[in-house]
Amino acid sequence: MELHGYFRSSASYRVRIALNLKRLTAQHFSYHLRNGEQRSSAYLAMNPQGLVPTFRNATGDLLTQSIAIIEWLDETYPDPSLLPQDPLQRARVRSFAMVLACDTHPVQNLKVLARLRQLGLTETVVTEWAAWANQEGLTACEALIAGETGPFCFGASPTLADICLIPQLANAKRFGVDLARFPRLKAVASAAAELKAFSDAAPEKQHDAE
Amino acid sequence: MELHGYFRSSASYRVRIALNLKRLTAQHFSYHLRNGEQRSSAYLAMNPQGLVPTFRNATGDLLTQSIAIIEWLDETYPDPSLLPQDPLQRARVRSFAMVLACDTHPVQNLKVLARLRQLGLTETVVTEWAAWANQEGLTACEALIAGETGPFCFGASPTLADICLIPQLANAKRFGVDLARFPRLKAVASAAAELKAFSDAAPEKQHDAE
Repeated sequence: MELHGYFRSSASYRVRIALNLKRLTAQHFSYHLRNGEQRSSAYLAMNPQGLVPTFRNATGDLLTQSIAIIEWLDETYPDPSLLPQDPLQRARVRSFAMVLACDTHPVQNLKVLARLRQLGLTETVVTEWAAWANQEGLTACEALIAGETGPFCFGASPTLADICLIPQLANAKRFGVDLARFPRLKAVASAAAELKAFSDAAPEKQHDAE
Repeated sequence: MELHGYFRSSASYRVRIALNLKRLTAQHFSYHLRNGEQRSSAYLAMNPQGLVPTFRNATGDLLTQSIAIIEWLDETYPDPSLLPQDPLQRARVRSFAMVLACDTHPVQNLKVLARLRQLGLTETVVTEWAAWANQEGLTACEALIAGETGPFCFGASPTLADICLIPQLANAKRFGVDLARFPRLKAVASAAAELKAFSDAAPEKQHDAE
C-alpha cells in the first residue's frame, strides 16, 4: 500500500494514525506542498484536487480524501474498530470529526491561507484567521465531549474523533492558539501521546520532516 | 423527528434530500442565519457550533453535522441505500462528497464570507472568493466522475455524492459560476431534477423561503 502525503499535512497525519492503529504499513511518498509538488501533472492524475493525501490500496486502487480513506480502512480492516458499533454513537463520533474535517481544517489550510495573502492581507491577519478557525472548531469540540468520561474523545479507545483531533491540535499550537481553555481536549491529547500509533504518526517523526 | 435548519443552507438542503429519499418526514424549524438566530442560547444548547442543521431523531436524540446525520439515517433506515455496498465504491462516493462537504462548502459559507467582509474586503472580492471555492470543488468533482456512466454521480440511483452535489450547484449558480464547463455535473443535475425527493427539497420550496 502507498500513502502519498506530506509530513505537515493534517489530513495525511490522520491517515498515518489510522494505519498505525490498524497495524498496517504503507510506503510513504512525500510531496512538498509549499513547492507545489501536489499540482504536478503526475500527482493530479492520481488526485484531481491536487490535495494530499492519496492512498493506494493493496490491489492498486486510488483513494482520496482522508475521511473517505479512513472509513474504507475501517470497513476493510475492522480490527480495531475506529467507530463505535451503535449508530447513534457513530453519529456523535462522526459529527465531532466533521467539525474539524469540514469546518475547521479546510478554512485554515495552506491553499486558503495562500489566497488570503494574494488578496493583500498581512501575515499577522493571515495567522489570526488561522487561529480563529482553530479556536471556533476546538471550542465546539470541547463542548461536544463535555459529558464524556474519556480518556479518549468517546470512551476507552481511540476513534475517528481522536484521529482528527490530534493533528488539529498540532495546527492550533502552530498558529498560537492557547490550548489552556480546552482541558478535555488536552486530556485526550495526553492519552493519545501514550500510544505509539499516535506518536509514530507525528509530523516531526516522518522521513520528509524539515 | 425534527430538522432545525434554514431554507438556503446547503447543509440543511442535503439532509432534506436524504429524508425525502428515505421517505421520512420531519418537522422543520427555521433559524434565520443572517439575523444570527443560530447563535441564540437555545440553539447553541442543541448545537455548540451554532451552525445548521441540527436533527432530532424519533427518540429525542440530537445529531449535528449534515454528513454524520445522513450516515446515521442510512444506517438506521437502510432502504434505499445512499451508499454502494462495495467498500471501494463507498470510498469513491464518500470522497466525492467530502470534496464538497470539506473543501468547498465550508470555505464559502456565510460565516467565512462575513469574516472576509470584516477584514475590509469588498463585496466583489468576497463574491470572487466564493466563486473560486465553488469552481475548485466542482472542477475536481467533474474529474472524479469522468469515467462514470450516470445518470447519477455513481450509477443508476442517487447516493451521498448527489446529495452533496445538488445543493452545491445551487450555491455555485448564486455566486455566478459558469456551469457550462461541468457537463457531467449538469447531466446529474438534470437526472436529480426529475426526482421529487430532490425537487421538494429545493430552497425555494421551503416554508421559510424569502
